[in-house]
Amino acid sequence: MTVTGIIAEFNPFHNGHKYLLDHAEGIKIVAMSGNFVQRGEPAIVDKWIRAQMALENGADLVVELPFFTAVQSADYFASGAVDVLSRLGIDSLTFGTEEVLDYQTIADVYSEKSEEMEAFVESLPSDLSYPQKTQKMWEKFAGVDFTGNTPNHILGLAYAKACAGKGITLNPIQRQGAGYHSLDKEVSFASATSLRLHKEDSDFVDKFMPNSKLFQTSPQVSWDNYFQLLVYQILTNPDLTSVFQVNEEIASRLKAAVREISSVEELVDKVATKRYTKARVRRILTYILVGAVDNSLPKSIHVLGFSQKGQFHLKSVKKSVDIVARIGRKPWDMLTQQADNVYQLGNPELCEQNFGRVPIRVK
Amino acid sequence: MTVTGIIAEFNPFHNGHKYLLDHAEGIKIVAMSGNFVQRGEPAIVDKWIRAQMALENGADLVVELPFFTAVQSADYFASGAVDVLSRLGIDSLTFGTEEVLDYQTIADVYSEKSEEMEAFVESLPSDLSYPQKTQKMWEKFAGVDFTGNTPNHILGLAYAKACAGKGITLNPIQRQGAGYHSLDKEVSFASATSLRLHKEDSDFVDKFMPNSKLFQTSPQVSWDNYFQLLVYQILTNPDLTSVFQVNEEIASRLKAAVREISSVEELVDKVATKRYTKARVRRILTYILVGAVDNSLPKSIHVLGFSQKGQFHLKSVKKSVDIVARIGRKPWDMLTQQADNVYQLGNPELCEQNFGRVPIRVK
Repeated sequence: MTVTGIIAEFNPFHNGHKYLLDHAEGIKIVAMSGNFVQRGEPAIVDKWIRAQMALENGADLVVELPFFTAVQSADYFASGAVDVLSRLGIDSLTFGTEEVLDYQTIADVYSEKSEEMEAFVESLPSDLSYPQKTQKMWEKFAGVDFTGNTPNHILGLAYAKACAGKGITLNPIQRQGAGYHSLDKEVSFASATSLRLHKEDSDFVDKFMPNSKLFQTSPQVSWDNYFQLLVYQILTNPDLTSVFQVNEEIASRLKAAVREISSVEELVDKVATKRYTKARVRRILTYILVGAVDNSLPKSIHVLGFSQKGQFHLKSVKKSVDIVARIGRKPWDMLTQQADNVYQLGNPELCEQNFGRVPIRVK
Repeated sequence: MTVTGIIAEFNPFHNGHKYLLDHAEGIKIVAMSGNFVQRGEPAIVDKWIRAQMALENGADLVVELPFFTAVQSADYFASGAVDVLSRLGIDSLTFGTEEVLDYQTIADVYSEKSEEMEAFVESLPSDLSYPQKTQKMWEKFAGVDFTGNTPNHILGLAYAKACAGKGITLNPIQRQGAGYHSLDKEVSFASATSLRLHKEDSDFVDKFMPNSKLFQTSPQVSWDNYFQLLVYQILTNPDLTSVFQVNEEIASRLKAAVREISSVEELVDKVATKRYTKARVRRILTYILVGAVDNSLPKSIHVLGFSQKGQFHLKSVKKSVDIVARIGRKPWDMLTQQADNVYQLGNPELCEQNFGRVPIRVK
């Protein structure tokens, strides 16, 4: 049977995600971010709730991306996630994109010319951001056109790169309805951004989420819930440069700005530059919040839940992969667990996120 | 004219403090803790409010003890405070005590035998707490009897020690009414502890505080307002032993306990031992909260306010002492100011505590 991988955040899980799962084939394995997501913010509901939503809507197995994979720029995010999925034996990767290109050919181009392409990226002027450099690379070597704000498309290219030479079939699915960040309420599919924005609008949430009730009754958080902690960390940390990706320049800009702002977005606005994109600054603030230092990735894979089919598959790969189903005294991944401890401080109703938790089972 | 020093916290300022000021002579200089106090907690109202209360009730000059003097065990607290006051030219020290002894003679004993006495303290078994050791020292060398819980008396002895050989006259005043920590509401003088406890009881506060209105309309805080920050710091600090007085043992006990408690007092209870008294643990938690590392004391003295008489006196000592009346870009004391930044996070209504603030003036 085909084993399909899906890389996701489900922040929160909506009808577009269900559509994607419906169009994936065989055993559907999801590698999902934990409690912090790629754009550098806390997930609106915790990883267990989001895993449950996915399992109730077609996923067979949901595993957790370690913090240090989940909160990274597109390339590291994609390669970390593809690595986890390929260890779990996927033979194809399904993903949503704004532009269905021939990603397979693109992956082949990268497979052949990766050294030349990376050297080209290195050679570009340093006032370009990394995403800008990558776009130029794809334009030059694969003739890809970039129009507008198409983050899933950019992730798709990162997946193509990460899968290059690994024998994984790329299966892009055209995104339905609203664009990734669309705030439009008059559409047939709503984006996750728009669902986070209209989370209090019960009719809207009902219309666009298959598990709206679970979502609405779960403890929710946003950056606002961590603003005070972030300010406190920036004020008291004697050496912010010990945090991943924080250099002297960023550290001193943060220290100078922190007493003059009243929200995380204000801080992002003050610190972002052409080179330090807002997404990158948000990720840096997330590293600061959770105290992330340069870290190795865990060797084992943490399972959040499975269907019966998923459980059978897990058994078949158990010999070659170290699977963690229940985190006890011995940690799975210190950084992810520390991040989860911080996540829990954002809302007193959040449950313990790791110790003693067992995978969610659905039929 | 006599210049009298008073060492105080005024947490909050009550009628007993007014009584003490009334019984002091000449120019009355108060060396007051800033926003964190000796027992290891945030002051209930900020240093400016407390300075104003003192100035409106007889103090001529209020200067701030740096954090690293204010949040210390009795001996360091006393010697740091006496040092500040002696630089400001005091010739006598007035203080409240539960037992009016001949402190002057006691100071003379210490003056003569300090080496022998400190060697004796060193020789005592290490399972005794430092306060216990000090009590044994006074019993043996000065024949002092200790009965019950008499913290002001113990501070009095620390003042005697700190003043020994400095030519400062000790002027103990019998404490009126309730004991230091008394919770009794049916007394003529209420303790600061009891006022903090009954802070919502407007009649009680009116009866025992000369500035009850100012107190009641000022932003107040307690450890509760910093509990989340403290938990967060303990969870995320990669090396708690870098904090002053935190050793491996305390650090690991804190890390183990922090996820099982729901208040600072619970944490204190879990971590305190015979050797680590509760007061010491509270101070350690305060060091952790504000990120205090071993620190030198500032050379200059920060003025919080003065009367006309106090201002004249300040002018007379200005040549020999470095006085800071207004903190600008150049810090007065980094640690105190960092502690104040953290203090401010406890209540959004708290004003900026340092930058640009000028001394309070009363007639």
